[in-house]
Amino acid sequence: MIYLDNCATTKPRDEVIQSMVDSMKVGFGNPSSLHRMGFDVEKQIKEARRVIADYLFVQEGEIIFTSGGTESNNIAIQGIAKKNKKRKHIITTAIEHPAASNTIRELEKQGYEVTILSNDNMGRIDLSHLKDSLKEDTFLVSIIHVNNEIGVIQDIKEIGNIIKDYNKNIHFHVDGVQSFGKIDFSLYKSKVDTFAFSSHKVYGPKGVGGLFISKNTKLEPILFGGGQEKGIRSGTENTYGIIGFAKAVQLLSKNTSYENKKVLDLKTYLVDELNRRIEGIKINSFLDEKSSPYILNISFSDTRGEVIVHYLEEDKIFVSTSSACSSKGTTKSHVLSAIGLEDRFSQGTIRICFSYDLSYEDMTFTAEKITKAVNEIRSLTRR
Amino acid sequence: MIYLDNCATTKPRDEVIQSMVDSMKVGFGNPSSLHRMGFDVEKQIKEARRVIADYLFVQEGEIIFTSGGTESNNIAIQGIAKKNKKRKHIITTAIEHPAASNTIRELEKQGYEVTILSNDNMGRIDLSHLKDSLKEDTFLVSIIHVNNEIGVIQDIKEIGNIIKDYNKNIHFHVDGVQSFGKIDFSLYKSKVDTFAFSSHKVYGPKGVGGLFISKNTKLEPILFGGGQEKGIRSGTENTYGIIGFAKAVQLLSKNTSYENKKVLDLKTYLVDELNRRIEGIKINSFLDEKSSPYILNISFSDTRGEVIVHYLEEDKIFVSTSSACSSKGTTKSHVLSAIGLEDRFSQGTIRICFSYDLSYEDMTFTAEKITKAVNEIRSLTRR
Repeated sequence: MIYLDNCATTKPRDEVIQSMVDSMKVGFGNPSSLHRMGFDVEKQIKEARRVIADYLFVQEGEIIFTSGGTESNNIAIQGIAKKNKKRKHIITTAIEHPAASNTIRELEKQGYEVTILSNDNMGRIDLSHLKDSLKEDTFLVSIIHVNNEIGVIQDIKEIGNIIKDYNKNIHFHVDGVQSFGKIDFSLYKSKVDTFAFSSHKVYGPKGVGGLFISKNTKLEPILFGGGQEKGIRSGTENTYGIIGFAKAVQLLSKNTSYENKKVLDLKTYLVDELNRRIEGIKINSFLDEKSSPYILNISFSDTRGEVIVHYLEEDKIFVSTSSACSSKGTTKSHVLSAIGLEDRFSQGTIRICFSYDLSYEDMTFTAEKITKAVNEIRSLTRR
Repeated sequence: MIYLDNCATTKPRDEVIQSMVDSMKVGFGNPSSLHRMGFDVEKQIKEARRVIADYLFVQEGEIIFTSGGTESNNIAIQGIAKKNKKRKHIITTAIEHPAASNTIRELEKQGYEVTILSNDNMGRIDLSHLKDSLKEDTFLVSIIHVNNEIGVIQDIKEIGNIIKDYNKNIHFHVDGVQSFGKIDFSLYKSKVDTFAFSSHKVYGPKGVGGLFISKNTKLEPILFGGGQEKGIRSGTENTYGIIGFAKAVQLLSKNTSYENKKVLDLKTYLVDELNRRIEGIKINSFLDEKSSPYILNISFSDTRGEVIVHYLEEDKIFVSTSSACSSKGTTKSHVLSAIGLEDRFSQGTIRICFSYDLSYEDMTFTAEKITKAVNEIRSLTRR
């Protein structure tokens, strides 16, 4: 099997699974319990928080655990809107994940004003448009760091400077679900106020994520209950998930640079192999540091992305058309629309998302099978 | 080790852990993915949903998965409030879990009117007070089925009839976190509209729960994103957690009657053993069908609950003072206040929560150690 849908979800590492099994067999207490079994788990959660905080070069007290990336984005965006009741203007992009865009759309329904920043044909947002859009009423700028469909990286450091130069009380939220563990960045230097991330995109378990909340930021909670996670995220902690997540991040920390370099080489190699074999290709992802090395979005004219997906799965190669969250929908990807991709290309688009454990042999095999699929589909379509 | 804090959380069964490991190793796809790995997991989630629905004698389409009991309660209570914008009156009890009471308190801050039903000195709510409180403006009655501190069962069938006889458009929400898998009931016969439950209270993993939403009920979501779980709970599903939860419920289904009978016998036996050895005891839980067999709340005059907890943990016996969610607080339990327990008893209260795998020997040992602890504390206090 060659699994190339790592933007949708990743396979948990063996060490992650083992850490969760240990936790379920021995350390199954409730961290809120008064006795030693509770304290022991509470200590493990604290340790997990430290691992994540260290990885992000932030303070332990600035990390809360959530049920995943979607909830993290919701807590940040809804939470700051509930806290800042006077200002009503939000700035965002056309290429957000639904976890952010649909939350912002909900606020729009409630009467908030939303500015959507324009972007170029590779998905980079227009920073002069950002500058021009900031106004007295603006309380939130919400930006996807690495786009989940095409991999484009937004320059959050430059964006943070623009926002905070204008007004340091504007909240800067970053959806980091596809950047966390995948590229280098600094939250402090980028003046980020909240940063959402997820475990299952970095070889950890599903059902757990995190949110960085800078220490001067106050959010109103969206869930109410026992007051866990400093009152921001009530509910018994997903202790097994948190421990597995921290284990995944520990293993990331050791290997990030090596893995990122290796993955970029694989991506470049695959593109070369495909270019060598197939005409009518459009590459929608940068092949340099302007994109996540883990994401390759590629279009084959006069084909159908979903048909390529099904051809490839016959050979146990798993890719996707767009994001998992919209791949079953019939509408055109909002991201491909936003970069102005022509229909003859966008219909024939697949997304290939890499992981650390792939080989050159896997890429050669994948290039061969994609070529076969594209040729067969084209011969059927053109007949 | 004798673990008697099963209301706070339970130990996952071995079969549950194994099902999660299998899922993480092989079935790690994203259910929203277009390819076979996605479909395979989607099928498993559907199967898990059927297991839960069958267990509750409801339809598959009436179950959604959430991150736990707190979120389930929030989705139901906030969701119905957002849907019913015209009516503003809520009825609830004084002995709710914070997941419900703090959510309702939040609505109160927003201008909703809240009636708290009175209860007797064993925690049973006053049904004539309920009848008198229902009015045209009432849109929600929210009741905890089995109280998490003292185990008292509310008669949801009678309550459902009273509510729906008055106005069938009043939403009946039940917090079933401590009743699910522990006692017999019928959601349909009780005319329940939403019912919140959790996995980690029934030997499943933490980080996952469920919500029954009767088919004619419409809720507004509180999280926005990819539209998973019929748009009510966006975010990549916690597939491993859901699969483990369903496995736990499958094992429950086979054993509920047997286990409940066994647990009630253990509870009765422990009370007899304690009564035989110690003076100045007050039992705050029923010892018959009016209480969950799994919960025993007991007070020892002139002692301190937290000191008993620490004495017992020296012998690897784990109990709690009140609920885990408030046990670390210094304030008196709101439940013990609501039943009017005198201070000399409430200060010396512990909660013992049973599980299927305990023995009579465990109970004898526990009774001996509690006796020793109570005697020592009293001798120190009285000196």
